[in-house]
Amino acid sequence: MSGTVYGLGVGPGDPELITLKALRILKAAPVIAYPAPETGDSFARQIVAPHLPGGQTEIAIRMPLGDGQFPKAEIYDAAAGAIADHAQAGRGVAVLCEGDPFFYGSFMYLYRRLVDRCDVQVVPGVSSLMACAGAAGLPLAARNETLTIVPAPLPDDELRMRLQSDAAFAIIKIGRHLGRLRRLLADGGWLARSWYVEHATLASQRSCRLSEVSEERAPYFSMVLVASARGER
Amino acid sequence: MSGTVYGLGVGPGDPELITLKALRILKAAPVIAYPAPETGDSFARQIVAPHLPGGQTEIAIRMPLGDGQFPKAEIYDAAAGAIADHAQAGRGVAVLCEGDPFFYGSFMYLYRRLVDRCDVQVVPGVSSLMACAGAAGLPLAARNETLTIVPAPLPDDELRMRLQSDAAFAIIKIGRHLGRLRRLLADGGWLARSWYVEHATLASQRSCRLSEVSEERAPYFSMVLVASARGER
Repeated sequence: MSGTVYGLGVGPGDPELITLKALRILKAAPVIAYPAPETGDSFARQIVAPHLPGGQTEIAIRMPLGDGQFPKAEIYDAAAGAIADHAQAGRGVAVLCEGDPFFYGSFMYLYRRLVDRCDVQVVPGVSSLMACAGAAGLPLAARNETLTIVPAPLPDDELRMRLQSDAAFAIIKIGRHLGRLRRLLADGGWLARSWYVEHATLASQRSCRLSEVSEERAPYFSMVLVASARGER
Repeated sequence: MSGTVYGLGVGPGDPELITLKALRILKAAPVIAYPAPETGDSFARQIVAPHLPGGQTEIAIRMPLGDGQFPKAEIYDAAAGAIADHAQAGRGVAVLCEGDPFFYGSFMYLYRRLVDRCDVQVVPGVSSLMACAGAAGLPLAARNETLTIVPAPLPDDELRMRLQSDAAFAIIKIGRHLGRLRRLLADGGWLARSWYVEHATLASQRSCRLSEVSEERAPYFSMVLVASARGER
């Protein structure tokens, strides 16, 4: 792995949902890097903590994480520079990514900055999308159904526009939008088809009908799944 | 695992992209079941073949697989009956699922028939959706973008209707629809944003711009990714 940068999908939360490939690279990499909040622990690092061999150089990429905050370009510029320095000195770098690196992950901003400077490889991981469907016991989509993934922070008008069909939906990035989203889904007649999942695959996992959730805010790691109206499943 | 039925996501093809959890259950299960074509080998079983301990009872669920064919209900009824018999006799059954069990997988038809009869657990897996994005070096979606998964066998009118937006798309089940789909995407102005991937994560993996693909048919395991027009990534 001399000098290769890996975008390493480490799965949705359960440390056992890492792949054999990601585990092998994780253990062999002299350097690991991971997103972390401005203070406190990195969730990506927590997921792999039971597997870490010790003695690795660690790069915590501190950034504002959470509702509606997008880190400044300078944060990715600096992190990409530090990672490229290691790679160009021949040291492999494993960049830990919650879920999958290319499904709404911040790794893509590093990828764009690194792909012309070093060998960059993406190791796909188990996404929260699939983890939430398994936790809810709700198949995402079947046969010739359409499945749309919609971020909850979109304005009401755009959310309604995206949802106007009989298709199946996964609504992500719920956070402080939970109450607004529940009302919007109720008004549109979707509530009976809507499931709520938080902390999928963790000990704190919760899964129930959205109609049974009364809170206004959800944890950052939560999702609403809306089943297809076609009932092909 | 006495008597539990597991829907086991075994990943997109590379045997190393199975999770630690799926591997543990796979090795411990006295019975494994898997979809298989009417003649020939099961792809799900091929994926895990390097990991099988030997000595397991195997249930090959023979069904028509491929372009536009949906197996008859009787096939799932019979398979669910055989699986339930093992489970009710206290034997754990691992049902192997290519990719993830609940993302356009046939496991959902067994799940529906088994969930009231036995303990059924879903182990999410790495989906071909994420594997193809990694292979193409193309992030699926970022920030507040919408991502829609659309099956290629839909009629032209419905495909155009689903694609009418600036969002990102993944078009699955390409098969014999490749030529028709390429012309439809070219007519609509999407071709410059379209990537083609086949056999992601296998030795035979191919990834290129869709405009560079001249065939009329694609393998069953292929996908077209259409990047968002927003360019947020």
